[in-house]
Amino acid sequence: MSKIAVLCGGVGAARFLRGLMHTTDHADITAIVNTADDMRLHGLAISPDLDTCTYTLAEVINPDTGWGLVGETWQAKDTLDRYGGQTWFGLGDRDLGTHLYRTQRLHEGATLAQVTREITAAWDLALNIIPMTNDPVRTRVTIAGGETIDFQRYFVERQHADVVTAVEFAGAEQALPAPGVLAAIAQADCLVIAPSNPFVSIDPVLAVPGIRDAVEQRRARNVAVSPIVGGGAIKGPAADLMRSFGHHVSAAGVASVYRSLAEHLVIDTIDLDLASAVEQAGMTPHVTNTMMTSIEVTAALADYTTSAIKPATSQE
Amino acid sequence: MSKIAVLCGGVGAARFLRGLMHTTDHADITAIVNTADDMRLHGLAISPDLDTCTYTLAEVINPDTGWGLVGETWQAKDTLDRYGGQTWFGLGDRDLGTHLYRTQRLHEGATLAQVTREITAAWDLALNIIPMTNDPVRTRVTIAGGETIDFQRYFVERQHADVVTAVEFAGAEQALPAPGVLAAIAQADCLVIAPSNPFVSIDPVLAVPGIRDAVEQRRARNVAVSPIVGGGAIKGPAADLMRSFGHHVSAAGVASVYRSLAEHLVIDTIDLDLASAVEQAGMTPHVTNTMMTSIEVTAALADYTTSAIKPATSQE
Repeated sequence: MSKIAVLCGGVGAARFLRGLMHTTDHADITAIVNTADDMRLHGLAISPDLDTCTYTLAEVINPDTGWGLVGETWQAKDTLDRYGGQTWFGLGDRDLGTHLYRTQRLHEGATLAQVTREITAAWDLALNIIPMTNDPVRTRVTIAGGETIDFQRYFVERQHADVVTAVEFAGAEQALPAPGVLAAIAQADCLVIAPSNPFVSIDPVLAVPGIRDAVEQRRARNVAVSPIVGGGAIKGPAADLMRSFGHHVSAAGVASVYRSLAEHLVIDTIDLDLASAVEQAGMTPHVTNTMMTSIEVTAALADYTTSAIKPATSQE
Repeated sequence: MSKIAVLCGGVGAARFLRGLMHTTDHADITAIVNTADDMRLHGLAISPDLDTCTYTLAEVINPDTGWGLVGETWQAKDTLDRYGGQTWFGLGDRDLGTHLYRTQRLHEGATLAQVTREITAAWDLALNIIPMTNDPVRTRVTIAGGETIDFQRYFVERQHADVVTAVEFAGAEQALPAPGVLAAIAQADCLVIAPSNPFVSIDPVLAVPGIRDAVEQRRARNVAVSPIVGGGAIKGPAADLMRSFGHHVSAAGVASVYRSLAEHLVIDTIDLDLASAVEQAGMTPHVTNTMMTSIEVTAALADYTTSAIKPATSQE
């Protein structure tokens, strides 16, 4: 009944969506996914966040790595190793099939959104997973020393060990939201900003012209889930990036980043004492367990998060 | 001492080269390989004849298929099957590593000849395997009914079941021989036309401007091995194509195809009675066992073939 749109990065968003699928009709969920982490490697079109969402929701994500497919083998990588090829970005044999398919379909003229629909349908997913855009947008990271490198080089190859001084989304200005993105945002009863990295997962989605405006226009019915818990990120460089960009590494810092986008911020019980700081930073705090350690907790978090938004008809 | 150049297609040529490696210093062998069978599939640069030669000579060819790598698995294909992707062209997981590497290196600006050198070196091969050209040339086959399709569609997907009415090598006119090709032809003490398909393996090599002239100019020191034995091809559509193009499907028919290119033709003992017909067709016949059923027979064939050419100094 109640339509939910979710702005998504990779792992954190995928886990949140998995919880949401336990509380909401799948067809009523639209995940709008960051594609600025995408890259071409070995000629293949690789969309890490789309695949992480798809594989997680299809319950076929590789539990050993947190990315790629379960039951993975590494034969192609072994051959690449023989040649001294580039193996810093892990491509398992099963996962390669997805990249091969996507690349072939894009060459045939399909859009990324169409291919994503085909792939999610093949995994029997009924929720709508939409790339933020069909156009190429690439996150470029300037690191201490002044060099600007592609996101996956920073994130995977250099294991986000560098201090980041700037982030840009090359191509964003020329990009259009993928079909259905603006409609999903406009029509959602509740829009969720998933617990993803604000600077390299959510910002690129908002950088596609039209999306930030559409989100801000409905600020009162938007809720973010803090990716910062107890002064740190669950995973990845979110804390480092908040520090680099002059924000407190805390739920209150997240509020200062997100206050123009959403009225509501879900923070972890461990951060209960930050509730008033969140309020002072301009967002309404909601406190619950946000550590998605089991599907039960995750489903409860999804339910709690979307419940922060009262149905429009009952709003005063 | 004695330098040998070999014009090569896929399986037959690869087997012949393997025999030659038992009789000749590897560094003195240059294989000039057809690349008009190459294609882009799933975004990957695939060079079937180059890989068949490399894998065969490195003794890592998949014995179950005759192509791809030994110890192959099919995980990427399984994923592609899930999506209804294109799986008519077999790409095993181990083999994929080669295509990934080649594609990445070409994107980085390496030439096909450079990448081929890197790949063959990684397999510890000391002979020179050179693509006929670094430029894109594509065999296009017109089939009964009038449709013109890419070679691998005809050869693999449709299992060469169609009657072929015409063959063209798109891009050949604009192509340049790869570095080293013309020098290898000019400097060889003996040039061998391997037992490959004359129309879709050898002809595309000759279609690269400069190669046919360079081969014809040294006709007296050239020797072909007949791909037709006892009125049929060992493998593939060579017999069908000879028929389509108006040649006898026999060693004598091969002589009528090759007479401008080489003085000598090695034919199988089963075709002994065709020796005079070969001579009438304009080539000097040499008769031996050409069935490369063991490495011993193959090495003997290679030795016999190159021995057809007397060293230039002892020629009258």
